[in-house]
Amino acid sequence: MAGEMNKWILMVTTRAPTNIAVIKYWGKRDEKLILPINDSISVTLDLNHLSATTTVAVSPSFEEDRMWLNGKEIPLSGGRYQNCLREIRSRAGDFKDEKRGIHIKKEDWCKLHFHIASYNNFPTAAGLASSAAGFACLVFSLAKLMNVNDDLSQLSAIARQGSGSACRSLYGGFVKWAMGNDLNGSDSVAIQLARETHWSDLVIIIAVVSSRQKETSSTTGMRESVETSTLLQHRAQVLVPGRILQMEDAIRNRDFSSFARLTCVDSNQFHAICLDTNPPIFYMNDTSHKLINLVERWNRHEGTPQVAYTFDAGPNAVMIAKDQKAATHLLQRLLFYFPPPPENEMSSYVLGDKTILQEAGIQSLNDIKALRPPPEVNNEASTRRYPGDVSYFICTRPGKGALVLEEEDEALIDTQTGLPK
Amino acid sequence: MAGEMNKWILMVTTRAPTNIAVIKYWGKRDEKLILPINDSISVTLDLNHLSATTTVAVSPSFEEDRMWLNGKEIPLSGGRYQNCLREIRSRAGDFKDEKRGIHIKKEDWCKLHFHIASYNNFPTAAGLASSAAGFACLVFSLAKLMNVNDDLSQLSAIARQGSGSACRSLYGGFVKWAMGNDLNGSDSVAIQLARETHWSDLVIIIAVVSSRQKETSSTTGMRESVETSTLLQHRAQVLVPGRILQMEDAIRNRDFSSFARLTCVDSNQFHAICLDTNPPIFYMNDTSHKLINLVERWNRHEGTPQVAYTFDAGPNAVMIAKDQKAATHLLQRLLFYFPPPPENEMSSYVLGDKTILQEAGIQSLNDIKALRPPPEVNNEASTRRYPGDVSYFICTRPGKGALVLEEEDEALIDTQTGLPK
Repeated sequence: MAGEMNKWILMVTTRAPTNIAVIKYWGKRDEKLILPINDSISVTLDLNHLSATTTVAVSPSFEEDRMWLNGKEIPLSGGRYQNCLREIRSRAGDFKDEKRGIHIKKEDWCKLHFHIASYNNFPTAAGLASSAAGFACLVFSLAKLMNVNDDLSQLSAIARQGSGSACRSLYGGFVKWAMGNDLNGSDSVAIQLARETHWSDLVIIIAVVSSRQKETSSTTGMRESVETSTLLQHRAQVLVPGRILQMEDAIRNRDFSSFARLTCVDSNQFHAICLDTNPPIFYMNDTSHKLINLVERWNRHEGTPQVAYTFDAGPNAVMIAKDQKAATHLLQRLLFYFPPPPENEMSSYVLGDKTILQEAGIQSLNDIKALRPPPEVNNEASTRRYPGDVSYFICTRPGKGALVLEEEDEALIDTQTGLPK
Repeated sequence: MAGEMNKWILMVTTRAPTNIAVIKYWGKRDEKLILPINDSISVTLDLNHLSATTTVAVSPSFEEDRMWLNGKEIPLSGGRYQNCLREIRSRAGDFKDEKRGIHIKKEDWCKLHFHIASYNNFPTAAGLASSAAGFACLVFSLAKLMNVNDDLSQLSAIARQGSGSACRSLYGGFVKWAMGNDLNGSDSVAIQLARETHWSDLVIIIAVVSSRQKETSSTTGMRESVETSTLLQHRAQVLVPGRILQMEDAIRNRDFSSFARLTCVDSNQFHAICLDTNPPIFYMNDTSHKLINLVERWNRHEGTPQVAYTFDAGPNAVMIAKDQKAATHLLQRLLFYFPPPPENEMSSYVLGDKTILQEAGIQSLNDIKALRPPPEVNNEASTRRYPGDVSYFICTRPGKGALVLEEEDEALIDTQTGLPK
């Protein structure tokens, strides 16, 4: 690194998806290394609708590590960021760009500073696992920049140290996070169970539920559950191992009935553990309960599950429909019960993949007004509508894992200034 | 029983309280005999505020068994009524009233018919364990009428066959329902742990929570939990036995901190089991959650519990305050957050023991309007008020068990007609 070369900037931009657990991660056995007390399984969500994009830049002219999230500078001093930076730096490879005359030896990465810019294409506050996408993306882009030779599974163990569920966001499709046994966490890694193309029928609708309550963070929540719930260890040690095997089978066989049953009971059990925590943690609210009742009633009426639901550490419902037809019927039901409040616009109420809205024959707010109660409803109390209970819906699908964006105009950092564009 | 004596009517009137479990009963091992899967412990509530009153009358002129509940005739054909009637009849003793010339031999009771009138002094629909008070009262009055020699504990095994928790309503104070071991249920009986005078400081405030949802009956709910919850047996077999011992200690030592902790965690665990049921059962709603948060925040602020909360199969909160002072402060907090809706009157909003309202310095709706947020509140979001979320409050205390009402004007059946007054 000669003095005259001070002006170069190297950068890499990547995108990583968020994911939704269908067998839940709740409870750490090691808080620092973020080692879980049970395996978990997730579905990766489509990058187009729910992802983080991150540009990492390095230059000898940078004087310190800096980071901007959604345009706002944030401190990088947190242990979780530092863990990821340290781990990636320690695995860095040599870098050589003959044309530009840039040579970085692997031992020199630790003398260089990074500028990192990241944004989420969905509201951070919505409680949609932005930290999973964010840390997966950070680790993936740093690894690409520094020529880290590790495979995705080894990288997942680093992303895990940023945010546990981030380790599952490197892969697309269906992903298992094996809890592992090693004290140092080396085998607590994510592996891909199946690609997104293995089960391409599935359609996902997310209801972002309005909430005034400030929620317990998942980090705090799971710590309190580990310390106080007298049901948690029974779940983690006795119940989850069998469920993991059953879920792997269900995914392998594309057995939607089993998949839906396991997804729903595991989500409900996770929230049961939260309720068994002292003091109790409530993530679901009355709207979440209504969404569950809607799905349960419809599934029972059909005789075979059409939709699975799962809730993370908040009131939002993630509903996984068997296929496009079931998703269409689900969306009609959702919009019947949860129409937009009067001042809303259609385009900001149903986001993401618009094909489901089209198949449902809904083009305007008047089409929503005209919806009839679903046929499975047999009493008047069940035909009440709740405008405003849901903030908006996102229609999406299982999707790919983290990827590199090659186009320079997708970079979030200016190649001249080294600052966010 | 000579023909000329056809006109006589014999009757007995008794009153029995409702009770609130502090270690919950949830799950039967025998549906027919109503045998539970774990012991439970309850506090009996004051007869003056929450009780059933029942008159049972017998006469050779009655042609069939008939019953009126709250003035309305109801069928007695249900298995639970029949079980209680059969069991009591089989234990009947001889009856002799020399003055009136009435002789009934014990074997003749089965040839006679009963008229039964019962009413609750609280709304049946409020979800306040009316069946516990009702069956305790029915069995107690029948036993008194038929000169049954059994002690209360033996009678409790009969009341149990009407409604499980009814067995705990025969005694006052603090009551344990031992699950028992016998296949025939003979040792699944209630025993008194302590009289109500043993711990007379306690004050109880019930928030009857408004709800539009139709709830799963507790009979159906616990059957579904037994069939589908994978946490229920762990609770019943591993966790509850220790809690029962700890709760007995807490009651014996009037140790409010332990009593409150055990009461709250057991209520929350019972609701966790409901959530772990497939499909999940939600008894608590957003208002219930707010009530819990209010109590938890205040207890934490005080450093030592002031109030315990517990919820049965519905959204109503039963809050047990350490003493009159704590109850006064609790009621101020409750009325701050949950004022009556505009059209309400004070006298129909806080029912029962009015002394707590007086000590709280609240005489009018304007006094409620003028209440300030509690000192433990540290952010604006926590000062929002929710008029209409609570239907009304009932202030009460631990109370006596079932008793005979000797005054003839307290009877619910007319001595001339044999029909409800």
